Amino acid sequence: MANLSLKEQKHELIKSTILNAAEKYFVSGGIDAVNLRKIAQDIGYSATNIYKYFQDKDAIIQALIEKRMQEIAQNITSIKPDQNSIKDIIALGFKLHIHKVLEYREHYKTVMLSKEKVFLDATSMLEPTTLNRLPAQRRLLETLKIGIDKGELRELDPIKTAQVLWSGMFGILIRVIIEDYKDLAYIDQLVDTYVDHMFLGINANKKA
Amino acid sequence: MANLSLKEQKHELIKSTILNAAEKYFVSGGIDAVNLRKIAQDIGYSATNIYKYFQDKDAIIQALIEKRMQEIAQNITSIKPDQNSIKDIIALGFKLHIHKVLEYREHYKTVMLSKEKVFLDATSMLEPTTLNRLPAQRRLLETLKIGIDKGELRELDPIKTAQVLWSGMFGILIRVIIEDYKDLAYIDQLVDTYVDHMFLGINANKKA
Repeated sequence: MANLSLKEQKHELIKSTILNAAEKYFVSGGIDAVNLRKIAQDIGYSATNIYKYFQDKDAIIQALIEKRMQEIAQNITSIKPDQNSIKDIIALGFKLHIHKVLEYREHYKTVMLSKEKVFLDATSMLEPTTLNRLPAQRRLLETLKIGIDKGELRELDPIKTAQVLWSGMFGILIRVIIEDYKDLAYIDQLVDTYVDHMFLGINANKKA
Repeated sequence: MANLSLKEQKHELIKSTILNAAEKYFVSGGIDAVNLRKIAQDIGYSATNIYKYFQDKDAIIQALIEKRMQEIAQNITSIKPDQNSIKDIIALGFKLHIHKVLEYREHYKTVMLSKEKVFLDATSMLEPTTLNRLPAQRRLLETLKIGIDKGELRELDPIKTAQVLWSGMFGILIRVIIEDYKDLAYIDQLVDTYVDHMFLGINANKKA
């Protein structure tokens, strides 16, 4: 058992080394720049050896997206639902998400704004059945469902609500990346404004 | 006077011909693909002649952005404020905007997702003073101010509110373009959901 675990650890370590090497190419030049021969050279492996860990280039890219998106979502999943209102959880989640994404801004931009199938398989969210592919989106959807169950939120369509709530955060985030906007305190204020309005409504008279 | 007007008309026609020729290159390959010599060749002009109408390549690109963005905003500015609630004006405005942008989707994607200064000069909106550069954003901001003045909306920060409201629409629109999403009826439903939530709030108890 101890031996097997060590073997597994080694396996994971090599996979991780391959992914880190791949990311360098990926971020600078997209899918086309990810070249198995170059990656092999960088980490002192043969390309044949890499195939023991990943079936093909697409498998490397998929693993890379999954790994980074899980890292990005990790902060959010650490927020405890019981101690806060749904509104506070979502506002904090969006802020943590934006701050974390900005550590991987080029990776995020490449993945989220690409029309390549290998990315869309992980990122598309307009088809209601595909919303919860990204860990952060899945978490948002779960949080809204908890809010409805607890009666904290109105009876609403949780999928459409998650789609539009997430789109607003995504729109702000994409502008921050494109405009290379540095004032993160102002971004946090925008997120608060967004979540406040979304939860409390901007109509003076709250009737339809 | 009649002669002058004809001259002016001819001037505008040639400018428009230059812009249309430029757009073909621009949409397929971005700024770098816009080549004054090629444009001149396409429309049977000399490059020197083009300089009579536009100072340089940047001036052509700026005029191109302005022209298309005004066309995109045209639908919105035709909505009459007096006959509808602010909520209905904004929901309709967002839908018209999305449908119109989809006619120019590659142009819009290139302009709105570019980090080139010539585009950012027209599109940046996170710096509060730059929000109203795009005609559609300016219109949104004006509509919110009218709503606050009329007491139809709460006392709120119109700039931050316009920024976050627009970001949500922008986020949906970017996803439609990236995912090449075809179900526009569903997109209209998402816009309605978004605007409903934003105006009426999703909290069961509408207190902070």
